[in-house]
Amino acid sequence: MLRKILIANRGEIAVRIIRACAEMGIRSVAIYSDADRFALHVKKADESYCIGSEPLAGYLNVYALVDLAAATGCDAIHPGYGFLSENAQFARICKERGIVFIGPDADVIHRMGDKTEARKAMIAAGIPVTPGSDGNLDNVEQALVVAESIGYPVMLKATSGGGGRGIRRCDNAEELQRNYQRVISEATKAFGSADVFLEKCVINPKHVEVQVLADHHGNTIHLYERDCSIQRRNQKLIEIAPSPQLDEAQRQYIGGLAVLAAKAVGYTNAGTVEFLLDDKDRFYFMEMNTRVQVEHTITETVTGVDIVEEQIRVAAGLTLRFKQHEIVRRGYAIQFRINAEDPQNGFLPSFGRISRYYAPGGPGVRTDTAIYTGYEIPPYYDSMLAKVIVSAMTWEDAIKRGERALKDMGLFGIKTTIPYYLEILRHPEFRAATSNTGFVDKYPELVNYSNKPRPEVLASVIAAVMAAHTGL
Amino acid sequence: MLRKILIANRGEIAVRIIRACAEMGIRSVAIYSDADRFALHVKKADESYCIGSEPLAGYLNVYALVDLAAATGCDAIHPGYGFLSENAQFARICKERGIVFIGPDADVIHRMGDKTEARKAMIAAGIPVTPGSDGNLDNVEQALVVAESIGYPVMLKATSGGGGRGIRRCDNAEELQRNYQRVISEATKAFGSADVFLEKCVINPKHVEVQVLADHHGNTIHLYERDCSIQRRNQKLIEIAPSPQLDEAQRQYIGGLAVLAAKAVGYTNAGTVEFLLDDKDRFYFMEMNTRVQVEHTITETVTGVDIVEEQIRVAAGLTLRFKQHEIVRRGYAIQFRINAEDPQNGFLPSFGRISRYYAPGGPGVRTDTAIYTGYEIPPYYDSMLAKVIVSAMTWEDAIKRGERALKDMGLFGIKTTIPYYLEILRHPEFRAATSNTGFVDKYPELVNYSNKPRPEVLASVIAAVMAAHTGL
Repeated sequence: MLRKILIANRGEIAVRIIRACAEMGIRSVAIYSDADRFALHVKKADESYCIGSEPLAGYLNVYALVDLAAATGCDAIHPGYGFLSENAQFARICKERGIVFIGPDADVIHRMGDKTEARKAMIAAGIPVTPGSDGNLDNVEQALVVAESIGYPVMLKATSGGGGRGIRRCDNAEELQRNYQRVISEATKAFGSADVFLEKCVINPKHVEVQVLADHHGNTIHLYERDCSIQRRNQKLIEIAPSPQLDEAQRQYIGGLAVLAAKAVGYTNAGTVEFLLDDKDRFYFMEMNTRVQVEHTITETVTGVDIVEEQIRVAAGLTLRFKQHEIVRRGYAIQFRINAEDPQNGFLPSFGRISRYYAPGGPGVRTDTAIYTGYEIPPYYDSMLAKVIVSAMTWEDAIKRGERALKDMGLFGIKTTIPYYLEILRHPEFRAATSNTGFVDKYPELVNYSNKPRPEVLASVIAAVMAAHTGL
Repeated sequence: MLRKILIANRGEIAVRIIRACAEMGIRSVAIYSDADRFALHVKKADESYCIGSEPLAGYLNVYALVDLAAATGCDAIHPGYGFLSENAQFARICKERGIVFIGPDADVIHRMGDKTEARKAMIAAGIPVTPGSDGNLDNVEQALVVAESIGYPVMLKATSGGGGRGIRRCDNAEELQRNYQRVISEATKAFGSADVFLEKCVINPKHVEVQVLADHHGNTIHLYERDCSIQRRNQKLIEIAPSPQLDEAQRQYIGGLAVLAAKAVGYTNAGTVEFLLDDKDRFYFMEMNTRVQVEHTITETVTGVDIVEEQIRVAAGLTLRFKQHEIVRRGYAIQFRINAEDPQNGFLPSFGRISRYYAPGGPGVRTDTAIYTGYEIPPYYDSMLAKVIVSAMTWEDAIKRGERALKDMGLFGIKTTIPYYLEILRHPEFRAATSNTGFVDKYPELVNYSNKPRPEVLASVIAAVMAAHTGL
């Protein structure tokens, strides 16, 4: 077993990994920038090291982190999500230095990070992909020919892009011509590669992704799917497991596809195969994320499997603890990403000091966060403050529990997405579980919630005053 | 469905019931004494009413509470546990006033509260009970004859007793003679009844109890068992579901016994049938608790069933949502009752102000509590501050998660039982799941934990200092 793990991350995912280490009897080593010196992951880890005064550079410094791991006697690094988690070079250097990278092999990360390579691998494995260019495009003329043959609208994508960036939709030849050079410049700047390719645009698809786990002994299983259709500008806001939009046959079908995809590329450790589901119930491979996902929590809740623990065990060379037939789902889970943003002000980040915080509790509620009362949110990082995960035996009960838990949560001093999520939970389309990735844009009025005290709070105050006067 | 429920309780169980109401769209009405005016249940309920300046009298005032329920338009009362929850008169008056009492029928509460009546009912139903007197004892001479025939040691018990009070163990005739009048006086004072009876003493049994649910349409099911052997002076400290001490055959056997017992007395709503398990693997009926149990949480975690919601549904006349074969367990759950007590000072209550509190989080952790940062614990009530419930797929993982969650929890300003529980978790007998009700007395040295900083905290400080000097 591994003895000591450096966690090359911050925030709630660093805390999540520290917790897994604590439960497994593994020492945890945290890293932090100056801006993060009061962060919870620093307090919770067994050891913590400052990696510089720059807010971001230290978390991205491949060589410094591998050096620190070696100097502190770590035998492994967990990259979390974001930062270096999908950096093939980082995985390769870890391996060269004899440090276990908790994730798939560097070659697999590289291949899945190159979107045209990933497409080719999937086509070869018989996984459905959207119609598109056969590899990268040579020039705009070729782009126009391919677009004509697959039909507009098309998506022009950076081959090395990800996380919703380096993508433009083109509705006709004129738009494609205008965007071609633009996406190339963006891609060169953001990802260091000028490669672009074309895919047919699926309009307002559902986003359905499958969690897979694979060990180094030939065992690959899936933990069923998550529906992440509630997104804003390609950033997920609310995730659901399993997808209430799928029937059992569809569920088994994409589970099987995901395992096939993982096996085809020699995948190991935890990964996610993302699919688009169009309005004709056709699935298309979108991309594979070669790391733990923000929303792994809802799959843990529904299946009972501790995904981070399995990641660590697999990296240590152990076999998976579960066979496919032992994966049994129970009920539904919903995750809310509580972001420090003001939905009524264009989702502008709302940083500052958390004057008071208490976590929601009671049955079927899990909270993953790195905040605490008095914590000052640094302005340099992701705006996600906390993940609230609720679960219940039915979809309807999970919604009601979500509403209750969001109201239960106490988070003061900053603006958050909580009141916006309450509006989403009350929306008939969300409740009917028919929403697709167009939901947020389709209902812009959901940000028009009132900031006045809720009627029930007022009633409670009135009742208390009455009681005081009547002596009840 | 019910529209508005008065919660005749306080603390964490009041919050628990308010949460169920919120999820079910039912209005909640809280009550509070002057001492409780800053309590969380007062803030969380839709309406709250002060029931007087006396800390306890208002919570126990049968007529005032029924009047308040009627005056505020409540159609039901949930009694929680403790206080009036097993008061048959309260249930009867509710019914007379047309208010639904969320619990079994008054007659059933009365019958199960009378321990000799309960014994008779169980014997008639074929449930094994310990050898004992045939009903109440007439005098000390009869007691001596019965004791001789069943063999010492014996337990002399108040017929109306409960919660571990009104009980004396007698190892020989002399002790029985000495205790007879004493227990009668105690019983008269505490329970208003001089009735006593005798039972053979089972030495250091295991405490195993079965959760049952029954509706008004003839459906009675069990939700499997809990092991509550970790007790101090008959007060449960740590509870486990399912019992890792039972095999599947034993589990099905007592599940069946509990359903049989419930049906025999016409039981409805949620209840718990408590058994003793002796060192020869024999089960004996101990008592039936006709209310929701403090430790219902671990059964909810393991089965996924929301017991408080089922209580409310059943009281409203609906059928149970689950059939017996639909009750599927997953993994293990452990509950820790976090008490405001100082284990190193004879478990002396430690009241005062909570200077800082944060709930443990992450996978497999649930917290039920009514405390918050700044909350001043009133000295009038139960010392239980919070329930931390952990769950995992295996018993071993549940223990590790328990240790992690207890360390994760932040609770400052008072002494608690947390460090004592950490010692229990590390004890080989607890880990081997062989402990019985003698555990706490057998290992008094477990309170001798150190209050000095843990080695890992020191190491972390040293590492941080080193890092600062070496520029790592």
